[in-house]
Amino acid sequence: MAETTPALLVVSAHAGDFVWRAGGAIASATMRGEKATVVCLSYGERGESASQWLAGKSLDEIKAIRRSEAEAAAAALGADIEFLDLGDYPLVESPEAVARLVDVYRRVQPTVVLTHPLADPYNGDHPAAARMALQARVLAQAIGVANSDGSYPSKDDIIGAPPVFFFEPHQPEQCDFKPNVLLDITDAFPKKQAAMECLPAQKHMWEYYTALAVRRGVQVKRNAGPNLGLPHETMGEAYMRYYPEVTAVLA
Amino acid sequence: MAETTPALLVVSAHAGDFVWRAGGAIASATMRGEKATVVCLSYGERGESASQWLAGKSLDEIKAIRRSEAEAAAAALGADIEFLDLGDYPLVESPEAVARLVDVYRRVQPTVVLTHPLADPYNGDHPAAARMALQARVLAQAIGVANSDGSYPSKDDIIGAPPVFFFEPHQPEQCDFKPNVLLDITDAFPKKQAAMECLPAQKHMWEYYTALAVRRGVQVKRNAGPNLGLPHETMGEAYMRYYPEVTAVLA
Amino acid sequence: MAETTPALLVVSAHAGDFVWRAGGAIASATMRGEKATVVCLSYGERGESASQWLAGKSLDEIKAIRRSEAEAAAAALGADIEFLDLGDYPLVESPEAVARLVDVYRRVQPTVVLTHPLADPYNGDHPAAARMALQARVLAQAIGVANSDGSYPSKDDIIGAPPVFFFEPHQPEQCDFKPNVLLDITDAFPKKQAAMECLPAQKHMWEYYTALAVRRGVQVKRNAGPNLGLPHETMGEAYMRYYPEVTAVLA
Amino acid sequence: MAETTPALLVVSAHAGDFVWRAGGAIASATMRGEKATVVCLSYGERGESASQWLAGKSLDEIKAIRRSEAEAAAAALGADIEFLDLGDYPLVESPEAVARLVDVYRRVQPTVVLTHPLADPYNGDHPAAARMALQARVLAQAIGVANSDGSYPSKDDIIGAPPVFFFEPHQPEQCDFKPNVLLDITDAFPKKQAAMECLPAQKHMWEYYTALAVRRGVQVKRNAGPNLGLPHETMGEAYMRYYPEVTAVLA
Amino acid sequence: MAETTPALLVVSAHAGDFVWRAGGAIASATMRGEKATVVCLSYGERGESASQWLAGKSLDEIKAIRRSEAEAAAAALGADIEFLDLGDYPLVESPEAVARLVDVYRRVQPTVVLTHPLADPYNGDHPAAARMALQARVLAQAIGVANSDGSYPSKDDIIGAPPVFFFEPHQPEQCDFKPNVLLDITDAFPKKQAAMECLPAQKHMWEYYTALAVRRGVQVKRNAGPNLGLPHETMGEAYMRYYPEVTAVLA
Amino acid sequence: MAETTPALLVVSAHAGDFVWRAGGAIASATMRGEKATVVCLSYGERGESASQWLAGKSLDEIKAIRRSEAEAAAAALGADIEFLDLGDYPLVESPEAVARLVDVYRRVQPTVVLTHPLADPYNGDHPAAARMALQARVLAQAIGVANSDGSYPSKDDIIGAPPVFFFEPHQPEQCDFKPNVLLDITDAFPKKQAAMECLPAQKHMWEYYTALAVRRGVQVKRNAGPNLGLPHETMGEAYMRYYPEVTAVLA
Repeated sequence: MAETTPALLVVSAHAGDFVWRAGGAIASATMRGEKATVVCLSYGERGESASQWLAGKSLDEIKAIRRSEAEAAAAALGADIEFLDLGDYPLVESPEAVARLVDVYRRVQPTVVLTHPLADPYNGDHPAAARMALQARVLAQAIGVANSDGSYPSKDDIIGAPPVFFFEPHQPEQCDFKPNVLLDITDAFPKKQAAMECLPAQKHMWEYYTALAVRRGVQVKRNAGPNLGLPHETMGEAYMRYYPEVTAVLA
Repeated sequence: MAETTPALLVVSAHAGDFVWRAGGAIASATMRGEKATVVCLSYGERGESASQWLAGKSLDEIKAIRRSEAEAAAAALGADIEFLDLGDYPLVESPEAVARLVDVYRRVQPTVVLTHPLADPYNGDHPAAARMALQARVLAQAIGVANSDGSYPSKDDIIGAPPVFFFEPHQPEQCDFKPNVLLDITDAFPKKQAAMECLPAQKHMWEYYTALAVRRGVQVKRNAGPNLGLPHETMGEAYMRYYPEVTAVLA
Repeated sequence: MAETTPALLVVSAHAGDFVWRAGGAIASATMRGEKATVVCLSYGERGESASQWLAGKSLDEIKAIRRSEAEAAAAALGADIEFLDLGDYPLVESPEAVARLVDVYRRVQPTVVLTHPLADPYNGDHPAAARMALQARVLAQAIGVANSDGSYPSKDDIIGAPPVFFFEPHQPEQCDFKPNVLLDITDAFPKKQAAMECLPAQKHMWEYYTALAVRRGVQVKRNAGPNLGLPHETMGEAYMRYYPEVTAVLA
Repeated sequence: MAETTPALLVVSAHAGDFVWRAGGAIASATMRGEKATVVCLSYGERGESASQWLAGKSLDEIKAIRRSEAEAAAAALGADIEFLDLGDYPLVESPEAVARLVDVYRRVQPTVVLTHPLADPYNGDHPAAARMALQARVLAQAIGVANSDGSYPSKDDIIGAPPVFFFEPHQPEQCDFKPNVLLDITDAFPKKQAAMECLPAQKHMWEYYTALAVRRGVQVKRNAGPNLGLPHETMGEAYMRYYPEVTAVLA
Repeated sequence: MAETTPALLVVSAHAGDFVWRAGGAIASATMRGEKATVVCLSYGERGESASQWLAGKSLDEIKAIRRSEAEAAAAALGADIEFLDLGDYPLVESPEAVARLVDVYRRVQPTVVLTHPLADPYNGDHPAAARMALQARVLAQAIGVANSDGSYPSKDDIIGAPPVFFFEPHQPEQCDFKPNVLLDITDAFPKKQAAMECLPAQKHMWEYYTALAVRRGVQVKRNAGPNLGLPHETMGEAYMRYYPEVTAVLA
Repeated sequence: MAETTPALLVVSAHAGDFVWRAGGAIASATMRGEKATVVCLSYGERGESASQWLAGKSLDEIKAIRRSEAEAAAAALGADIEFLDLGDYPLVESPEAVARLVDVYRRVQPTVVLTHPLADPYNGDHPAAARMALQARVLAQAIGVANSDGSYPSKDDIIGAPPVFFFEPHQPEQCDFKPNVLLDITDAFPKKQAAMECLPAQKHMWEYYTALAVRRGVQVKRNAGPNLGLPHETMGEAYMRYYPEVTAVLA
């Protein structure tokens, strides 16, 4: 329906989240020649770096390590990446942080947004990231909301109404995550694998997320039906739309 | 993703339901040159024909009137129509009725299915129709399930996994109807209007469903965003997917 | 809003349910001079008469005992009572049973209907009773639905759209029972107590349901606010509306 | 049950919300001779004034325009109006803002409260307003909570437990808005129309909210039943009770 | 709390379900020396035997094959197995089938019951099996409900209130399956593997369900916490309690 | 499964909550020789001390009274108690308050945590307490999160993953409280009674919470089944697990 240039924006609470949970969607987009931008709100330096703390690393060292790993993973997926360095555990919500995200939205002009779901009993940073991503999206649409430098946006600066997809959390059922979109990532999976391998501290996750992609791939095939002739090795990722789908064709 | 021939199947409890609730989707499909088939499980002869009963018509007369009106409306939408004449108020579920629907699925080979939502505190026939439509869809997929004449299907006879969309009930919130698909029916609306006008006994509904299409159209625009440049007069219909969407592209 | 004559209809799966769960509402109505009719679909002869089976009573004896107890309790509440004797454990749903209930609706012309909630993991007869009560209510509204003797109703015979209230099950949270109506039964409580005392086999329940009435009474006061000056000893019953309230005044 | 003086309090996030969503309820109350007070937490100057920003108006000009429009609309409905000017997009929650609302509650002594529902994926200001309205209501009940000037309330200053009704959001199903109260606003509709016409910048909304009132009116009639003899042109507004209804009569 | 002899009853719609979904729980029980009984309501001869139908096998041949495979798998798990041969696709609910299950309950005297969850959009036989398993459990508790041969049970024949656990369906989120019990099956996993290998036609499932056990094992560790020192290779199965847990110690 | 020392931590918004809602669980634990610690975030000085305000007491007096009552009640239950004095009505959430709770978690090393449920339309302090209790629990697990004095924890200081149980609110159904654990507190009830009697200003609650314990006790028996031989006078408390249960045995 649209004639806008496809642009994917991924808002991630910590430096690694976008790889495990949305690597396939990101690589799919960049393989189609589309632009993808990842925004990490924090490095996950306190809450997701236990092995480095145990090894006696300092806070700054840990942040540097995680930043460079995330940059390598984003490169493997073909995506740009930026870091807001808001701190984690807890990731504190603030009008200032939201204002910086508004700037990102207006610069990136996303046609699709990916972020965490709104509930996670195991990690409060994830819903906090989602709330800020959603609030910034609405504010970025309004011509009366100033940019963070105080200037007012022009009509071209504000954004449209890009659909938002929540990516899969670690324990989906506990997070009220009921997928309503199953994404075929078969072709993109090698790039996702390469990105996962940029995160050596979590080697056991490589196999784990490969097995999950198989499981979601089975659901892709089951829901698509046998007529489509999808290959046995179909790989998948699960998503949950936040807003209704708008379409001119039911399919 | 598929290379199958598009074919729309609409399972309607009574003779008029498909017009008010899904006329736009049906006309959209036939205007694209696709085939659409409506199956009316009953004529709505007892529960939705009060004015004719009050006018002293007999049961057979009422069924005949409603049948011809529904045929005219289907023609206006460009759709085929058939009637199972299962009786209404109540529409009684039975293995035999489901078996007849299995035959329909295998003959029509639908790529998209439309039916009622699974809850309706105002009309038990609607969920009964939905349950039979859903059960028949699953049975029609199985090569071990015989046709209603006792013959076994070939591999070509069984069906795939067509997506199912619930159309909008009269009191959506009371029916747990939370639309996750908003369909742009602007171009198809004149045909829907023509179909509505084939149902003269419910003249007050014409205006009512036109106003609803405007309201759903506002939501189409709101969820699509201003960038898409949809016209002020966008008309819409609301649907609810029962199974997750399968896709190779998030959009 | 209405000028109809108030008439309360209570559809109860077993012979005792209406006393424990709705005795206050029934007595309140009859104390206002309104008519109340209880329909027991079964006597609860198999599922709720363990002590009588252990005492070696026959099926017919048990049904007779429970019938006379229920008649005494209904009398204490000022209500009429009738029995459909459909059998319990399980209470089997059938078009014939629903048709008999349609007759009851048309004869009683209820302005308010009370029945069980739609879920109960401890007793499948309760939701079965509710489903039949709800289906019969919808069928009784339709002029095209014949009476059980095959005659067609006149315009005066069909019923309006009486509100339906679910009464409180034994384990409310497990039955998805979220009360949205708290009924002040302070004045009616003595009659409820008298009715409970007509059921001597369940003596331990008397105290239990008195304590529940206190607890619901505390909620009546809490939700009404201190300004209303309700007495400390306010007694209550909890209900759940199935259909939206229709009103000309928010209060 | 109460002998308190009826007083309606409407807490609105932006300057126009109360007109579209609750104009009928407000006019109904004032037409019965009751007092109604609208509190606008912001003017909607940033998020809901796009056309004025595009026309080059300044922030102060926009606030002044919206204030005078809202004053005119309130006058048309017969209601008092006040403005807290807390800013919008985002409407930021704070203890200070809540304290000012506590003062309003104690001054107005509402017997009924109307506000936004607690979820709205399209506008975070609406749930923020609702959360503050609900928190202030609870604080205003406590004699130990000081007024915003530091003085302690007397027993007469604190409030009771007025029922809270959420009014209808723009996309009800997406906001988990399941109406459980349908209000007949037929007599009040001309005043609602006059109030809508005080908001000339949103002329297309006049027709839209008229059509919605027709749709809700159909539901009023459907849920009230034919016996009540409501006129064909019944107009309605939908509400959702937050607390259970307290009553001495089921009806 | 109890002094009853542990006895596990598994009610399975088709012949293979108990292996994939509950093999770990069954083997755990038998490895503790407890008795386990599997009841297959059908062989899954129509709906889950596509490859055999394609290979031209007859209905009787398919039933025999599936029966012997299921017997081998049950043996590998150390469980007894019986077959009610009710037919599948659809598995039709009936009072007679429930009565046969009542007999099973009274004979087995289960202390724990496992069955399918109550919703499954992909397979209506699964919820049908669950509904019958739950209904029979309640009927088997009542001394007034006769055995299927017409005799009445003694006080020793009726059953207590065994907890019911739903096992994991193939697409958990679509089936409203939110696990509230994570079972450590590490020690039992080799037996589950052996049982899976008794089902050679579904070889691709072996790996799939191994990966799922790893994923649920990660959740076992995550929810147990690091203090418990669970091994890296912890394997798990997910369950959902239907009734509240009863306990004398919170843990 | 664990070899950790049992330690119960109760996080209570106000000074009395832990007595009414969790007194049985606390006394059960201490009667087994386990350690129990209650943390009161506030004294409930503004929101739950109306009678003392009406009697003209000062803020400091009220806090002192409620503190000493709570200390007496804790002593009666055999528990330690501490007070964070964060203020109530509203109980304001802050990173500093959470940090103090992190210290408590690391000091107490709880194996079980009790707190309020996450929703309460009648008292916003309760969910605020729960949110802080849950956030602190997650932060206390992370070795990268400093103690509130800025020091970093050792590997022994961080905590595991203790299960969290929500205790019963005053109006459970309105708080989405669906108990999934029923605790037998028969033996502990005398100590709970003694603790309740330490709160003389709320004498009417003694009887009320005794009646509630009877009601929950009936549900304990109903869900445990008759085989267990629980006494007629079984007393209970209801809880809701927030995280899935982890177990090696289904029971």
